[in-house]
Amino acid sequence: MSQESYTLKALANITGATLQGDPNRKIHGIASLAQAKSGELSFVADETYLSQLASSEATAVIIPADCANACHTDALVVPNAKLAFIKVAQLFHPVSSPSPGCHPTAVVGEHSTIHPSAYVGPHVVLGDHVTIGADVVLGPGTSVGDHVSIGAGSVFHSNVTVYPHCVIGERAVIHSGVVIGADGFGFTPNAAKHWVKVPQVGRVVIGHDVEIGANTTIDRGALDDTTLGDGVKIDNLVMIGHNVTVGQHTLICGCTGIAGSTAIGQHCTIGGASTINGHIRIADHVVLAGASGVMKSIAEAGAYGSAMLLQPIREWKKSLLRYWKLGDLFHRVRKLELSQGKQHDNDQ
Amino acid sequence: MSQESYTLKALANITGATLQGDPNRKIHGIASLAQAKSGELSFVADETYLSQLASSEATAVIIPADCANACHTDALVVPNAKLAFIKVAQLFHPVSSPSPGCHPTAVVGEHSTIHPSAYVGPHVVLGDHVTIGADVVLGPGTSVGDHVSIGAGSVFHSNVTVYPHCVIGERAVIHSGVVIGADGFGFTPNAAKHWVKVPQVGRVVIGHDVEIGANTTIDRGALDDTTLGDGVKIDNLVMIGHNVTVGQHTLICGCTGIAGSTAIGQHCTIGGASTINGHIRIADHVVLAGASGVMKSIAEAGAYGSAMLLQPIREWKKSLLRYWKLGDLFHRVRKLELSQGKQHDNDQ
Amino acid sequence: MSQESYTLKALANITGATLQGDPNRKIHGIASLAQAKSGELSFVADETYLSQLASSEATAVIIPADCANACHTDALVVPNAKLAFIKVAQLFHPVSSPSPGCHPTAVVGEHSTIHPSAYVGPHVVLGDHVTIGADVVLGPGTSVGDHVSIGAGSVFHSNVTVYPHCVIGERAVIHSGVVIGADGFGFTPNAAKHWVKVPQVGRVVIGHDVEIGANTTIDRGALDDTTLGDGVKIDNLVMIGHNVTVGQHTLICGCTGIAGSTAIGQHCTIGGASTINGHIRIADHVVLAGASGVMKSIAEAGAYGSAMLLQPIREWKKSLLRYWKLGDLFHRVRKLELSQGKQHDNDQ
Repeated sequence: MSQESYTLKALANITGATLQGDPNRKIHGIASLAQAKSGELSFVADETYLSQLASSEATAVIIPADCANACHTDALVVPNAKLAFIKVAQLFHPVSSPSPGCHPTAVVGEHSTIHPSAYVGPHVVLGDHVTIGADVVLGPGTSVGDHVSIGAGSVFHSNVTVYPHCVIGERAVIHSGVVIGADGFGFTPNAAKHWVKVPQVGRVVIGHDVEIGANTTIDRGALDDTTLGDGVKIDNLVMIGHNVTVGQHTLICGCTGIAGSTAIGQHCTIGGASTINGHIRIADHVVLAGASGVMKSIAEAGAYGSAMLLQPIREWKKSLLRYWKLGDLFHRVRKLELSQGKQHDNDQ
Repeated sequence: MSQESYTLKALANITGATLQGDPNRKIHGIASLAQAKSGELSFVADETYLSQLASSEATAVIIPADCANACHTDALVVPNAKLAFIKVAQLFHPVSSPSPGCHPTAVVGEHSTIHPSAYVGPHVVLGDHVTIGADVVLGPGTSVGDHVSIGAGSVFHSNVTVYPHCVIGERAVIHSGVVIGADGFGFTPNAAKHWVKVPQVGRVVIGHDVEIGANTTIDRGALDDTTLGDGVKIDNLVMIGHNVTVGQHTLICGCTGIAGSTAIGQHCTIGGASTINGHIRIADHVVLAGASGVMKSIAEAGAYGSAMLLQPIREWKKSLLRYWKLGDLFHRVRKLELSQGKQHDNDQ
Repeated sequence: MSQESYTLKALANITGATLQGDPNRKIHGIASLAQAKSGELSFVADETYLSQLASSEATAVIIPADCANACHTDALVVPNAKLAFIKVAQLFHPVSSPSPGCHPTAVVGEHSTIHPSAYVGPHVVLGDHVTIGADVVLGPGTSVGDHVSIGAGSVFHSNVTVYPHCVIGERAVIHSGVVIGADGFGFTPNAAKHWVKVPQVGRVVIGHDVEIGANTTIDRGALDDTTLGDGVKIDNLVMIGHNVTVGQHTLICGCTGIAGSTAIGQHCTIGGASTINGHIRIADHVVLAGASGVMKSIAEAGAYGSAMLLQPIREWKKSLLRYWKLGDLFHRVRKLELSQGKQHDNDQ
């Protein structure tokens, strides 16, 4: 963390904000509304934050114009408080990169090209014919297979694995434990009903500005490639099957599983713990609520959900029993209708 | 495994049990009721184990008083058979710690303090300003970031990653592949609808006596910290989002996902594969059945569930169709009611 | 990838196919129907592929007899196109093994036996009394505990962890990040309602020809062993609890969780993201659809499912409300029935 402090005037310049209050007020750090102490800057994303603002000890806040009147502290008024706060956060918490070079414990294969500005950490293993771009950082214990290419500015945390022939774009952020390019899950039964492995000879090809969360796995394609478009963001413990394609700027939250050969559109938001069937297509701009199950293709943009109600355990068990008896209920209603129809006939 | 044997008398002393049978009987190992052979000790947790006891070859069992009459073998009678059995298990399977010291292949940064009784295994990487407490064991390939502190008696298995600035309490057990402190999943769209990363500058702060299962991930906070209270136990492949707080002595079973900024109470039991929404609160002493989905806060202690019925595939598809037509059914019943009301009016 | 090319005649010999077309046609690679270019061979698994075949640029295809008439390209006609295509794929993409030997950065404990034909990669750590069979490959950063045995021909990718005393059969394929033998999740509350760890002293015992996907975890047994039968195939991010047994030739798709002490039969197919309760039995030849939740034992072979419908968000919320009111609806229908019965009585 930086020990610097900035005046509100300086922060207003950096964020393009209109300053409301004392331009010479010193700010030495950032914090949430709940945790901020004197001398710290926080932010109000929208009106839902105003109740927290009331009791906050923050010295100043970044705030959108439509909330600024309610503000009792000094304020930096901006159109988008989150984006402005990000700029300030980067100021107080600059990303520090290790000095370039290969750690002496790293093992580098033959015919590999490492840009002189890149950092290859302790116990990293690079195969043959690997290409590492400018300013790349490879954290401890990362293992990179033959013929892999990693674009400029990408940061790999610790214990990442990339299998041979995969391609990672520029400015990727790959968190610890991620596995890119493991074999897709392809087996076919032989006459004895034993599973025979289908060779998985495609690659994983990842665009620019992609972030992948801890312990997520992205399988290589069977024949064609598994691809992630530019700007895709994936959370932790997500499973992307072989031959999946994810369109640009799609966001996939944690614990989601996407089965093989499915095509996800651009600008989608996939809620956490969703389950997406294989061999389907999901349109652009689809939003899935958390824990959604998707069995069929989704042809139209929009928001979808399928998660069930949580109930106290007795109610839940009764609900299951009722669900089980729904067929009966439909029959009973049909019977009532028929009987009433007859009644109706009798009446006439 | 120990090659020692103990008399039943000795085991009764150790467990505080009332001995029923031959005090000089020798016991040389422990086993389940199903697998136990002559000379081995097993246990009966409660009356549900009695059917297995009948056919067990165990020489003796640990058994609660209310089951002891049914016991045909020598027995150690105790109030809590599981706790007593744990004591005996520790006797026959003592945990062996490696000799203190840093393996020569470990890489240790500057200004780091490693207690002389700690063990730092092969290919471990410690950053700068790391503090490793007494009797800590760090397994092979573990990577610990700058400014991390690990409390006395903690055991890390292999290939664990801890990001910078995180704090681990005393006597933690961290299984292989765990990732502590990766960036939370925080992005906000810019004008072009590209995702801009929100810096994740909080920490993970873990109390004492916490166990974390294999390949689980615990994200660092965005601004505030992600925290796990004392005595929290987390199973494998669990995902804890940024700014989550988990209260003391809460148990979280495998494959569960908890989205960001949610507060879980103390002494909760979260069933496996549960999905918990972000920004909600779960009261103390809540029990969730397996595969529960929690969309809203839970204000009251108690047991809850939401998982659906498994059905043969045809029934399942019919159930989905009925569920789809529930709106219709409600309309049809309303119509019947109205019609009957009219009928009723006619009758009068 | 091999740079070889083969004549169709040669490929017909290798696959036992009936050749339809020019025997001297040269094939230099394989591809999917969609991506194949001139000179490449693809395959038609069944009639569902025929629409893609029409527009494919593949020079030739492997095709089953009942589809061969529809084929406009040269063709290798076989009974099972997938199995034949696997043979050809292995030809063009032979698996290359590293040269035998221990990398100088590997750390090997005492009393361990490594077959001279095995390869132990960079930064691998083997404990004491480890046995590594013929032709085994251990990828970078893999950690193998004391007394582990790994059968001939097994391939471990990077950063795998095997805890002490586990047994892996022959020809296993273990993908990166897999954790075998971590402690099962066994805790029991003491008088203070703190969780006391139950020692986990069983093993994981894995048969022959097993494949385990990236970041999957298989916990060791508490007292008895966790076992996977011969030919079991497990996908990524699967969680197998302690004392689970999986029968021979069962397939488990990604993101599935199986709680402790459950017995899965032989030749089952477990759909992705399924959740299986502990202490239950699943018969042989059971097929679970994706995202199935299994609370109780399944006694009969057959296909089962439980996943819910995805709906547009408004419909979904209405469905939840209707589900919530199902109890009411049952009451209303009962009331209608009673009232109609009375009506009926009145009529008579």
